[in-house]
Amino acid sequence: MEDSKTQEISIQKPLSMPPADSRQQARTLVMKLQDDICAGLELTDGLGKFKEESWDRPEGGGGRSRVMSEGEIFEQGGVNFSEVEGTELPPSILNQRPEAKGHSWFATGTSMVLHPRNPYLPTVHLNYRYFEAGPVWWFGGGADLTPYYPFLEDARHFHKTHKAACDSINPEFHKVFKPWCDEYFYLKHRKETRGIGGIFYDYQDGSGLLYKGQNQNGNAAKISQDIGKQSTSWDQLYSLAKSCGEAFLPAYIPIIKKRKNQPYGEKERQFQLYRRGRYVEFNLVWDRGTIFGLQTNGRTESILMSLPPLVRWEYGYKPPENSRESLLTKVFNRPQDWLGDKTLEKKLESHNAID
Amino acid sequence: MEDSKTQEISIQKPLSMPPADSRQQARTLVMKLQDDICAGLELTDGLGKFKEESWDRPEGGGGRSRVMSEGEIFEQGGVNFSEVEGTELPPSILNQRPEAKGHSWFATGTSMVLHPRNPYLPTVHLNYRYFEAGPVWWFGGGADLTPYYPFLEDARHFHKTHKAACDSINPEFHKVFKPWCDEYFYLKHRKETRGIGGIFYDYQDGSGLLYKGQNQNGNAAKISQDIGKQSTSWDQLYSLAKSCGEAFLPAYIPIIKKRKNQPYGEKERQFQLYRRGRYVEFNLVWDRGTIFGLQTNGRTESILMSLPPLVRWEYGYKPPENSRESLLTKVFNRPQDWLGDKTLEKKLESHNAID
Repeated sequence: MEDSKTQEISIQKPLSMPPADSRQQARTLVMKLQDDICAGLELTDGLGKFKEESWDRPEGGGGRSRVMSEGEIFEQGGVNFSEVEGTELPPSILNQRPEAKGHSWFATGTSMVLHPRNPYLPTVHLNYRYFEAGPVWWFGGGADLTPYYPFLEDARHFHKTHKAACDSINPEFHKVFKPWCDEYFYLKHRKETRGIGGIFYDYQDGSGLLYKGQNQNGNAAKISQDIGKQSTSWDQLYSLAKSCGEAFLPAYIPIIKKRKNQPYGEKERQFQLYRRGRYVEFNLVWDRGTIFGLQTNGRTESILMSLPPLVRWEYGYKPPENSRESLLTKVFNRPQDWLGDKTLEKKLESHNAID
Repeated sequence: MEDSKTQEISIQKPLSMPPADSRQQARTLVMKLQDDICAGLELTDGLGKFKEESWDRPEGGGGRSRVMSEGEIFEQGGVNFSEVEGTELPPSILNQRPEAKGHSWFATGTSMVLHPRNPYLPTVHLNYRYFEAGPVWWFGGGADLTPYYPFLEDARHFHKTHKAACDSINPEFHKVFKPWCDEYFYLKHRKETRGIGGIFYDYQDGSGLLYKGQNQNGNAAKISQDIGKQSTSWDQLYSLAKSCGEAFLPAYIPIIKKRKNQPYGEKERQFQLYRRGRYVEFNLVWDRGTIFGLQTNGRTESILMSLPPLVRWEYGYKPPENSRESLLTKVFNRPQDWLGDKTLEKKLESHNAID
């Protein structure tokens, strides 16, 4: 009953029409995000520079991929921009947006994954995108952090910064987009989240319930039901992407600056390479975007830019009890109320994991 | 029309009934294969020993996983045995075997992946399995080789040995099982085969056409149509698994012995780590067994024993023209008639890739 009700509300017509220059506005936004983020990352790294490759998509559209390798801080990182068009959306998206059926579509977005070398620095992912297809349009995106060592202060800083960016548009957003992120970046076969999460949202067209994902039994759906329908304009959702996208550097760079000189040894490096395996497992087994891209003639090299430069797998590995490595999995790879739960300090205090 | 005809033939009742002790026979066969192969590999390695872990499956059955790490030759390798039971087969298998619907099922098998350290030694995979579900039973399995450097003689030896094992039961088998292997171990997003192939077969119940896979437009299906229906007994299919399983050591060990002392440098090692990325991509994106296991509460550590110990990804890597690395992709990662095509020498002769 609850499910079909949600479905009904979420597929009603958008309340707000996009402006006449919607595509231009969205394109300019995500291209500027790519530019600003790349500039900020180069400045922070000091040594590494992004190399750009522009490409065309035979079916329409194209993109520019930027990759940094062997920087001072970033072992590998990629920031993509793409703008693509097509005649019919794939079934996986049409399920969520049946009104788009039979219509050609347009999508533009930027996505990024950074893999620092120092294991005390977290891997980070960001993606903001905009779609139009016949009568419907929507925004999607988010950013999430994957630490290899547990630092509570870092987790709180990342979440606090993104919460403020969401709150500046609508104070209800973060309540839904935070658990949505935990549920999306989840490795079912490991019973772990990919990292400490952040925010994630999709199919935002300004109408109905905020949660428009597939897991109608999760926390994000429940909280969204409690909040009820929200009416948001195109301009506000544009501003949300802008606000969250611009929050990326302030959310991530302070963590990098704080820890980049923290010395580490072979043990920490090996644990990082091991945990990077989880990143690969998530992206290749569970990430709908990656799998869809690979199975439908996407640009393989750009899609797989998200994979880490060096990774290892080890059969049956278990970190020692009460080690930092064990705390990572037990506390940091599970959904947590990072900003509200004051018992987290207690769980971590004996392990130098608070700051 | 052709598709529905094939479908009709492949789902008719098996012509031969299994013996009363079929499960016992199959179990003994695959456990002995695991034992013999592990013994042969330890002898060849000289230093590395397999560590065994036995496990139970909550839903019924269990297995024994054996892993070798940091051997003299083998950087990492795993040989699994498992025997599992369940109440209903998953839809992906029921599609191919509709008569099994509503019946409980039994499966026993052994599977193996070995990752040698020396880049001149190929990675190898083997799997032989037996299923029963209500009125139906079938055998499946095969072995395939994934070299990192192109040696024609090695490819021919591996194929020749497996062809002889198939021919000893039915000279038509290899004509279908060889292309079936090329088609199964295919990375569509790279337009590459995983390696040089070998043999692969599934759903063999002794009746109808030999090819019972999903790609009715491929070479395996066409050749199978040309051959026509084959009638094979349970005992013969048991003997096929035995014969092919016993062919593994003679197919692989001579290659190891021949090349294990061949010196290599950092360039070859880096190329091996890069190509291992393709192994991960295949197993996590395309291998139905792996994905099914991970998505349905299989034993994750045993399933992912197939992943290499160390892997790297590099954006946009292209090997130099006419290098051995380039020949690998152009010749060895495409389906070839290894035993019949005499022009392969010509393609490889200037690159020390013949022997």
